[in-house]
Amino acid sequence: MQNRTDLALELKEEKNIGSAQSGIIVKTRIDTTNHIKETKIIIKNKKGEDSLGKPKGTYITIEAKDLSTNDGSFHKEMSEALFLNLKEMLNKKKKILIAGLGNADVTADSLGPKVVNNLYITRHLQKEGIGNYQFELSAIAPGVMAQTGIETSEILESLADRIKPDVVIVIDALAARSYSRLNKTIQISDTGIAPGSGVGNHRNEITQHTIGVPVLAIGVPTVISVPAIIHDVFGEKSLENVSENIDEEFISMHVTPKNIDESMKRISYTISEGINHLLHN
Amino acid sequence: MQNRTDLALELKEEKNIGSAQSGIIVKTRIDTTNHIKETKIIIKNKKGEDSLGKPKGTYITIEAKDLSTNDGSFHKEMSEALFLNLKEMLNKKKKILIAGLGNADVTADSLGPKVVNNLYITRHLQKEGIGNYQFELSAIAPGVMAQTGIETSEILESLADRIKPDVVIVIDALAARSYSRLNKTIQISDTGIAPGSGVGNHRNEITQHTIGVPVLAIGVPTVISVPAIIHDVFGEKSLENVSENIDEEFISMHVTPKNIDESMKRISYTISEGINHLLHN
Amino acid sequence: MQNRTDLALELKEEKNIGSAQSGIIVKTRIDTTNHIKETKIIIKNKKGEDSLGKPKGTYITIEAKDLSTNDGSFHKEMSEALFLNLKEMLNKKKKILIAGLGNADVTADSLGPKVVNNLYITRHLQKEGIGNYQFELSAIAPGVMAQTGIETSEILESLADRIKPDVVIVIDALAARSYSRLNKTIQISDTGIAPGSGVGNHRNEITQHTIGVPVLAIGVPTVISVPAIIHDVFGEKSLENVSENIDEEFISMHVTPKNIDESMKRISYTISEGINHLLHN
Amino acid sequence: MQNRTDLALELKEEKNIGSAQSGIIVKTRIDTTNHIKETKIIIKNKKGEDSLGKPKGTYITIEAKDLSTNDGSFHKEMSEALFLNLKEMLNKKKKILIAGLGNADVTADSLGPKVVNNLYITRHLQKEGIGNYQFELSAIAPGVMAQTGIETSEILESLADRIKPDVVIVIDALAARSYSRLNKTIQISDTGIAPGSGVGNHRNEITQHTIGVPVLAIGVPTVISVPAIIHDVFGEKSLENVSENIDEEFISMHVTPKNIDESMKRISYTISEGINHLLHN
Repeated sequence: MQNRTDLALELKEEKNIGSAQSGIIVKTRIDTTNHIKETKIIIKNKKGEDSLGKPKGTYITIEAKDLSTNDGSFHKEMSEALFLNLKEMLNKKKKILIAGLGNADVTADSLGPKVVNNLYITRHLQKEGIGNYQFELSAIAPGVMAQTGIETSEILESLADRIKPDVVIVIDALAARSYSRLNKTIQISDTGIAPGSGVGNHRNEITQHTIGVPVLAIGVPTVISVPAIIHDVFGEKSLENVSENIDEEFISMHVTPKNIDESMKRISYTISEGINHLLHN
Repeated sequence: MQNRTDLALELKEEKNIGSAQSGIIVKTRIDTTNHIKETKIIIKNKKGEDSLGKPKGTYITIEAKDLSTNDGSFHKEMSEALFLNLKEMLNKKKKILIAGLGNADVTADSLGPKVVNNLYITRHLQKEGIGNYQFELSAIAPGVMAQTGIETSEILESLADRIKPDVVIVIDALAARSYSRLNKTIQISDTGIAPGSGVGNHRNEITQHTIGVPVLAIGVPTVISVPAIIHDVFGEKSLENVSENIDEEFISMHVTPKNIDESMKRISYTISEGINHLLHN
Repeated sequence: MQNRTDLALELKEEKNIGSAQSGIIVKTRIDTTNHIKETKIIIKNKKGEDSLGKPKGTYITIEAKDLSTNDGSFHKEMSEALFLNLKEMLNKKKKILIAGLGNADVTADSLGPKVVNNLYITRHLQKEGIGNYQFELSAIAPGVMAQTGIETSEILESLADRIKPDVVIVIDALAARSYSRLNKTIQISDTGIAPGSGVGNHRNEITQHTIGVPVLAIGVPTVISVPAIIHDVFGEKSLENVSENIDEEFISMHVTPKNIDESMKRISYTISEGINHLLHN
Repeated sequence: MQNRTDLALELKEEKNIGSAQSGIIVKTRIDTTNHIKETKIIIKNKKGEDSLGKPKGTYITIEAKDLSTNDGSFHKEMSEALFLNLKEMLNKKKKILIAGLGNADVTADSLGPKVVNNLYITRHLQKEGIGNYQFELSAIAPGVMAQTGIETSEILESLADRIKPDVVIVIDALAARSYSRLNKTIQISDTGIAPGSGVGNHRNEITQHTIGVPVLAIGVPTVISVPAIIHDVFGEKSLENVSENIDEEFISMHVTPKNIDESMKRISYTISEGINHLLHN
């Protein structure tokens, strides 16, 4: 029974990993407004992978400097920080396919579809010679396996193979360990998505290896897993003691705050604005 | 920190209360198909109220006889059982105002709005002399206080005062202790709704006392509270030990299964069919 | 068979009514940015009512100066113009109940519910002493009569009687004659809503007379009626000629553009931002 | 300016084409309950294609015998008729990919996504060895080009190429000429979908030619085009006279009845039940 988080930042904190440790580089930056804190964690090699339990690559976390004050008032600052980091990671790649993962009918899992629903899509316009944009955006919200019967990775692989984007950006709801980070933190990584992460576990690997082009991932923690809750309350030991009392269905359940609808509306808008900003710059 | 359930049946089981005990009567019935189990708990007096921690009245629980087999295949049987019990409780009352409580934008709290969305509303038809129905149905899904700024009880009191129904039926998502009952159990009571129960706690008392006419309540457990989860895993003692580690926001969070969208679609349909059945009988 | 529009501005244009005519005052204003045109039509007396076919009061229309250029890029200017006009019309009234009329499940009729869904509601916060706002906002999206069986006016009358706002603002989708104005024009009036106007005709009179407090109305034309379409194409005479060929169901149908979803998302956001602006000013 | 309908049945009626005419075979059948009328139109060759203006193939229309009585009460009969015709057309093909075309956010265009939302998907279950079904169902609701920037045909071609179904069934909202058929008629054809048909025109050709496997199409007329309305009211001649008065945006608008939400809920359920029936037979 694992104490699961999809945030590299939480793994780093939990394992108390600093920049000194070989294989991992950690950089922290407070932006000029002094409101937003960015933490960049670079896993450089196999050694880094083993110590953090995440694949090699860069993980950037954007959060309000003082988490408890983030009631949505830093919408613009977070959106801008996302835009700047995305732009750097895209590094001249122009044709972007956005994949909004997750289940639109389950509030806490609806981040991906909600973001896609607010994007300014340009691919069809550019094909018809309408407008002149810095980037070409296309998007899909494929649904989850219970709705389609198809692995999300299969849908994205076949589509990417057909329309040949330079890069795929997947948007997904994540699980965190700490409830103070729920709906307040954005993680961007250049590693794609590996099996077992995310809220609904709705795919196999979606990475450059399977998709054929680089895959960026934007995620927001929206739920806590039941084991993480138990760990939070009772500490490390508790999980070993209780594992035999708990069945699988129970572990697969998720914990969400009551006002999850407001949070999802706000944070999905922050992300779509950050992406739309690419077009006009 | 309380180990909360809205199901009278779970309180009875927890406190091991039987029919013998003064103040409470418990009757169990397996229906003719042998698939559905009905438990009727009648709290007769103050003594019964104190031992069960629920107001005086009748609480009927409808569930599949073997809970683990209820994958939706007993839809028709549960719908029929709901209809029969409702009809008996209504006892000749003809003008019904249905109130679908809860937040349509939060999947686990959307039971009320979803049921209302599938009802066959007749009040306006009958006022215009169209059709001939056994019952007059009107309905409202007022939203939750974060959306309206108004107590749900205020909305219902003023509306009932205006349109003068014979009875109000409130539909609401409930909290259970046991995850095996989630989305598989229907509770009907003639007591209305008291503060502090339900998923989102989105109202004050909605009872005959405040509304002015009898109030029936139909509920389905869709979430488990965090304290109940901890109790389930670690037993009674745990809750006392940890109470100082846990803040209020944490306690207010809810635990739901991953496929909550499918469950809500199914069980809300079961309930709306049970109510619609009144019209054609 | 009437050539219906809910816009005072279109009635004025159709009847070629100018300021000179007794009973009606027309003022036009181009705002400082030179992008937004405001037309204020004041119907002063019975004579004005008869010539325009609208109740006495003030009707302000906000539109882009050059309608054909309004692809959403004037969102901020329109939102600001709405805010300024609302503020003036409210004239120190502080307790506002917003009523989002219409059917959330019919795209072209969903303006009211969509606006309510984006409002920053404060009434419950102020009652609990949280925050300090210039205005107290509460809101309800009561649904349409086919969903509730209850006249919208009955719901609002009883609710206003209970919570005693200083003013009610109803938000509703309107019908226009000209398709070039669809989803591009906002009308604000201080007359409330009279029977027969709006998309779905989903209410009786909602005015100070019935509600007991002043009623402002904010509307956007989202549909054209079938008779208006025929009039547009064939001229005045056509409507008389064809009236016997057309049955009632046909006339009640509505014409909408294909991209109505995008328009509704944009214009409802413009309106909710205009209202929310009241709180922080 | 064309007087557009997607129903082969309406084209046949308009052109007064009978079975005698070479190239086209028409068969009519009243089912045993005497409530449902099925019309099968077979276009056999180029001559038939030219006279009806539709590609070669079979078009079956299912409607209530007396259209005006179809208020939803023939739900079961229509669902059963759809099932039987589908089963015959599938002719032993077992692996089915359902494509729910259209825009979920525009009520009249939401048929496809709504049907997909009620399907019982089995492909992933069968891959994991769970259950034993007569057919393997997978499904996708890809959205429209304004949402994705990608032609629907491109998405389906790449997906079909990847998961290799035996047959693709596309579900789509259609345009009719006659408003009495709206939301009351189901058309099934074995020809797929050609450019220019449907409500939103949201794709290029989706046929065996492009997809690589046979493509069945299930459609329901949910809108009338503006030219068809004008034709209905003024007759054939009118369209020639007015064509210069009407611009393209105007022609692309659609006419829908007010209660389109109720109709779409009902008819999409009828279709999903007809498809789900395949699994248990």
